[in-house]
Amino acid sequence: MRPYAFGVDIGGTAVKLGLFRTTGELMEKWSIPTRTEDGGEHVLPDVIASLRAKLEERAIPWDQVEGAGMGVPGPVKEDGTVMRCINLGWGVFNIPEQIRTLEPRIHRFRISNDVNAATLGEQWRGAAQGRKNVFMITLGTGIGGGLVINEKITNGVGGAAGEIGHFLVEPGETEICKCGRRGCLEQYCSATGLLRQAKKALLERPEIPSVLRSEAELTAKDVCDAAKAGDALALELLEKLGDRLGWALTAVTSTADPEVIVIGGGLSNAGDILLEPIVQGYRAHAFHALRDTEFTLARLGNDAGIYGCVRMLM
Amino acid sequence: MRPYAFGVDIGGTAVKLGLFRTTGELMEKWSIPTRTEDGGEHVLPDVIASLRAKLEERAIPWDQVEGAGMGVPGPVKEDGTVMRCINLGWGVFNIPEQIRTLEPRIHRFRISNDVNAATLGEQWRGAAQGRKNVFMITLGTGIGGGLVINEKITNGVGGAAGEIGHFLVEPGETEICKCGRRGCLEQYCSATGLLRQAKKALLERPEIPSVLRSEAELTAKDVCDAAKAGDALALELLEKLGDRLGWALTAVTSTADPEVIVIGGGLSNAGDILLEPIVQGYRAHAFHALRDTEFTLARLGNDAGIYGCVRMLM
Repeated sequence: MRPYAFGVDIGGTAVKLGLFRTTGELMEKWSIPTRTEDGGEHVLPDVIASLRAKLEERAIPWDQVEGAGMGVPGPVKEDGTVMRCINLGWGVFNIPEQIRTLEPRIHRFRISNDVNAATLGEQWRGAAQGRKNVFMITLGTGIGGGLVINEKITNGVGGAAGEIGHFLVEPGETEICKCGRRGCLEQYCSATGLLRQAKKALLERPEIPSVLRSEAELTAKDVCDAAKAGDALALELLEKLGDRLGWALTAVTSTADPEVIVIGGGLSNAGDILLEPIVQGYRAHAFHALRDTEFTLARLGNDAGIYGCVRMLM
Repeated sequence: MRPYAFGVDIGGTAVKLGLFRTTGELMEKWSIPTRTEDGGEHVLPDVIASLRAKLEERAIPWDQVEGAGMGVPGPVKEDGTVMRCINLGWGVFNIPEQIRTLEPRIHRFRISNDVNAATLGEQWRGAAQGRKNVFMITLGTGIGGGLVINEKITNGVGGAAGEIGHFLVEPGETEICKCGRRGCLEQYCSATGLLRQAKKALLERPEIPSVLRSEAELTAKDVCDAAKAGDALALELLEKLGDRLGWALTAVTSTADPEVIVIGGGLSNAGDILLEPIVQGYRAHAFHALRDTEFTLARLGNDAGIYGCVRMLM
């Protein structure tokens, strides 16, 4: 294997890039803005330009580079075809083909969904290091998930493995999810979902005192901070989130029985105040053969993606 | 690879055995009773005796046999430790070790849960032939499930991958499931579950005419037969089963996104009258990226297990 490799994690606002030694060491990371205008047509050329510039800066020739792994925010088929990345403005096209056209000197190229890549990153060098079978769920604006089986990403036939954010959990819901349906897990257990539930609770239960009422612009982080400070309403909101998410995760373990579930995404920065009710909800609802699944918080933060992208090349 | 192999599918009343050529051809199948008395201690010696007798009968020496694959009705860990097979009277012990003690001439040995093995059988030579990623659900006395990823069984850390029969689907349930909890999928969507729901509907809704009222000893098959004959109550029961099971299966595909879901087990003999409401229920509740998952009925029936057991050796 050649000595260097790139990890490229494409997000809706920034592309995170990493130059690694193929021994696994991150040498340098940086980021460039994601230019989503013109149907996202500048994104890949910008990435290639940035990789070229980095090699030039470090005087590393292309034939010393094993390749690049890429994560994108949307489903990816086994052949590298992306099935619409809404946040990038992309339609349906084959990424490896376009990459080869842009830069034929790239020796090897791998692509996956960004959360799948991040799951592999956590499995390789993060919270699930040393485990072969891992599920990661990310709680942020939405909910993402990734499944690693036998140290390999499971993409699924349509690239949608791990996408449990739109599992129907509340048939009676009246508000519409961004997917167009109602009652998705994401509407309750993402950061956005927690905030929505908090605002609802504050309106519907004016008799309950809470420090959350004094926030001018309430955020999900405020709810977690209030819970840490002992606010009863905030604690109840996290308990409900944990119960529902824990229950939904029993469906995941019933399917794949991974060794560990990693909780990631922006909301996971809240730490144990979030993790504990999820674990409690899980154990309360899990079939006995599945009750001992381990839970852990993600460890690599925003770097998980670039680690996983490089790992895909190995 | 040596020219012959055995598949051994251990059930609660009978052990199904198959002698295969390692090219994949089933040469002969037979069965022996499962002696569950004395904590099931005769089961494995009986199996070994039957394999020896078959080789003697055919004048095949052990050094022409690649090995034996075995399926057992309970969770199996990666190292071959069974975690209590209640139907066999077994506690916790390591099967490969015991097999080697009983018959050191067995060249290679593999073991898995019986439904996992059957899933691999359907993937290799049955309804899901040619597909790499398959989920099978079996609807019988209980509900079982198996996950094949990249043509390999996913056992899971505790051997419980695929065990979605005890996923909680009805928090308000008052009757107790055989697992000790309430509201498990199995209580509604197994053959036993369908029968339970039918009896309940007949009692609770005496105003609805149904041919099911005239059955002396109602069975799940009667319900399916009545539905085929157009009985409105029976059709409604299958529609409800399909809606609930289809929804639960969206959790499976959200996790692993397999190419195809195989519906097996005794209840699946009902055919399309069962399959169609499940598919309809699934498509109604699935996230758009998962809506096109294929569904099919199992094809190998009781032979799926021995096929899968042999495939494990390859």
